[in-house]
Parts: sequence; C-alpha cells; structure tokens
Amino acid sequence: MAYELYYWPTIQGRGEFVRLALEEAGARYIDVARTDGGEDAMLGYLDDEHNVRPPFAPPFLKAGKLIIAQTANILLFLGERHGLAPATEAGRLWTHQLQLTIADLVTEVHDAHHPIASSLYYEEQKPEAKRRSHHLIAERLPKYLGYFETVLERNRGRQNFLVGANLTYADLSAFQLIDGLLYAFPKAMARISKKFPNLMRLHANVAARPRIAAYLASERRIPNNEDDIFRRYPELDQ
Amino acid sequence: MAYELYYWPTIQGRGEFVRLALEEAGARYIDVARTDGGEDAMLGYLDDEHNVRPPFAPPFLKAGKLIIAQTANILLFLGERHGLAPATEAGRLWTHQLQLTIADLVTEVHDAHHPIASSLYYEEQKPEAKRRSHHLIAERLPKYLGYFETVLERNRGRQNFLVGANLTYADLSAFQLIDGLLYAFPKAMARISKKFPNLMRLHANVAARPRIAAYLASERRIPNNEDDIFRRYPELDQ
Repeated sequence: MAYELYYWPTIQGRGEFVRLALEEAGARYIDVARTDGGEDAMLGYLDDEHNVRPPFAPPFLKAGKLIIAQTANILLFLGERHGLAPATEAGRLWTHQLQLTIADLVTEVHDAHHPIASSLYYEEQKPEAKRRSHHLIAERLPKYLGYFETVLERNRGRQNFLVGANLTYADLSAFQLIDGLLYAFPKAMARISKKFPNLMRLHANVAARPRIAAYLASERRIPNNEDDIFRRYPELDQ
Repeated sequence: MAYELYYWPTIQGRGEFVRLALEEAGARYIDVARTDGGEDAMLGYLDDEHNVRPPFAPPFLKAGKLIIAQTANILLFLGERHGLAPATEAGRLWTHQLQLTIADLVTEVHDAHHPIASSLYYEEQKPEAKRRSHHLIAERLPKYLGYFETVLERNRGRQNFLVGANLTYADLSAFQLIDGLLYAFPKAMARISKKFPNLMRLHANVAARPRIAAYLASERRIPNNEDDIFRRYPELDQ
C-alpha cells in the first residue's frame, strides 16, 4: 500500500524532510494535496470531528491505519521502517536527537522572516525581521552549523555521515537545511560555509545520491519560493 | 543506578518536563547542576572534545552508558522505560506527537519575550516582545490550547488523559505548560481558560497526584522566575 503524505502543495516546507526520506527509501507515496481535490481533502481531514487523534498541522502521513504528524515523529517512524536509522536504541535516539536539533534551527530560520507572527505578512514585520536575521546569521547559524560540523568530525564512521557508517534521515534533513540556507542566504553562506567543509560535503554527497538526484531533477521537487520557510530576501542576507 | 539529569540549576525551563517524568516514575536521579560543582561538570561535558555524540544544549540525561538530549527525545526514552507511554507503536507515536506539539508552543512562549534574539536582554527587545505577545495571546494560545482541549474531549478513555486511559508524559508536559501559562499570563489565562475546562482539569489532576504533589511542595521544584521560559511581565499579559 502506498503512503499518503499530506502537506501544503506549493512549498517544500517541513513536508520536504518527509519527502526526502520517502524518496531515498524508494517508498511508494501519494503527495495528496498536490492531486486534484487533495488540498481540500487535507483540510477536511484536519477539521474532521470523527478523528480521535487529530494532527495539529501538516505534514501528516497515513501509513495503513496509522496517521502520524510532526515531522520528526514521521521520520522516527520511517527511519525504523526503511533502514534510515540505526537498529540499536542508542543509535535511534541519537539520530532523533540530531533531527530535533535541525528542527529547532528550521524554526529559527522561519522566525527570522516572521519574528512577530505567522499570521502577519513579512512586509508587516520587516524591521523586526532585519534585526532577528542579523542575530541568526551572526550567532545562530555559526553555532548550529558548527555543531553539526563537529558531529561529522567526531563520527568515527569516516563516511561523512552524521550517524555511524550509513545514511540516516538526519543526513537527508541536514542536506535540506543546508540547501535551504544556500537559497535564502547566498551571501552569508558564501562567507561562513568555508568553516563547515564536512557539512558542505554532506550536502553535495546527498544531492548526488541516485534517488535524491532523480528526485531533485523531477517535478516532484517544488522550487524554492518566498512563501516557504527558506526565503531569499536580499535585505536579510547580510 | 541513578539517572543523571543535566540542566540549568536556577530555572524550570525545558529540564522541568524531564524532572516531572522522573518524579512521577519514582525514578532515582541526580539533578547534577544543582550539586556542588555540578554546573561546571555540565559545561565541561558540553565542551568535552572526546564526546563523540555531544548534546547541542541542556537538558541531557545520562542513563548508564546512554546520553540523551532534546527534551522530547528524553521523554520518548523515559516513557518507554517507566510506563509513561503506551506499549503499542501507534500509542507511542501519538504520545510523542503531542509532546512535540507542546514543545512547539513552549518555543513560541519563550520567543514572546525574546522575539529578536536569545542573546539580548528582554529590555533590549521590549517593543517587539509586546507585539509578539499580543499575537501569542490572541491567536496562538487559543489555537494550541483549543487543540489539546479537543484531544481530551475525543479521547475515549474518559479519564481526562490525553492518551488512552492512563497517564503519559504528555499529560505531565501539558500540566507544566498550563502551570507556566498561569504564572506568566494570569490575566489572559483567567479570561481564556474557561474555554478549556478539560485541560484545566488535567492541570489540577496532575498537580494532585501524590508524587507530583510531593515534588511541587519540595525544594526540588524551582520557583518560577524571570530568567525562565514562562515569565511574568505584566506589560505582556493583555
């Protein structure tokens, strides 16, 4: 049976972390909201009063009778099912820990262009966005990316994976993180990425994996745009 | 062997979600940074170059040879070990999903007083904090708390737990969330909490559980204060 992924149809967003895992796993899935009537189906599901375990928000994944929301939680599930996480408890927890840390930075990147409220337009919070983006670029990106660089350096697997000697969903998510940052902050990343050679190499390596390369070249990959988490606003890219 | 919890010694913060689980489980643990020299030990551990799987930040938990960071990840581990989560895969994922949704709101509450940067004082971002807090109270709290109220209504367990018929770590975390909101936003909560009777009942029920009540009355429970996530700034409580 094919998985059903429910996520906003016009952005990569948080759904992209799930798409990348499904693509690398070679899993069959339907990106429901991108099919005819699919977005209404997604919204209807969120409002369905008969659903005893409702998601708070997309993305959510239907896997047979299971319906799983929260990006990191979906990846926890898919990682175990599709060999995208170690089999040991210690390895699974460590992979999840990295994923949650990536998720924290993703939230910070989103809030850099929406520091006051998601319900307001960017144009309604531009001065605040400029202030927050300055701190993101000067403090937060170096701290987080330096952390992931350290994890790569210390991983004795030596294959330039975050966890052990095999690809995990944390690597796919780190790829997506770097890919988004390169889009949103080309000037800042040109300057600071030199300090993170292993992380940049991970980004290149993941992009070159056969299934990921095919996906990125396909129409299934939604182009970056300014409704997404990673937005290219030159005034925020210092 | 006792667990070792590493977290900032003067705030409830994110560590409190772990403390509550340990207390309810009746687990033996050392709150390391609150012992003599413990905070230095925590900071030393974060900087230790020999640590191949370093935490990004506190809290982290040592459990024998395991070292686990990220609050939700620690609870995933403790939930399984101490019967604070269902035994089924579906139940475990649903509990974790709720925890991650609580964590998202906790971040939003933190950012309401720090919308620009964690590295700045509140006093350096007061106008922005006032703007963001307005949206938190008017939009985000009703949305999130309404969601958890719905989850309680639809849970057929009828015991006023979030998941099934038994207490899980998600209930403990929902207690902490409501407890913090009542401290930080007494006026706003007096107004809006009427809409969430089940959630407020959950808060009261958890507080009355013998082990939790004993903990809350003890010196182990750090009093609320304005270095914490939940801060009482009257100018933000509309």
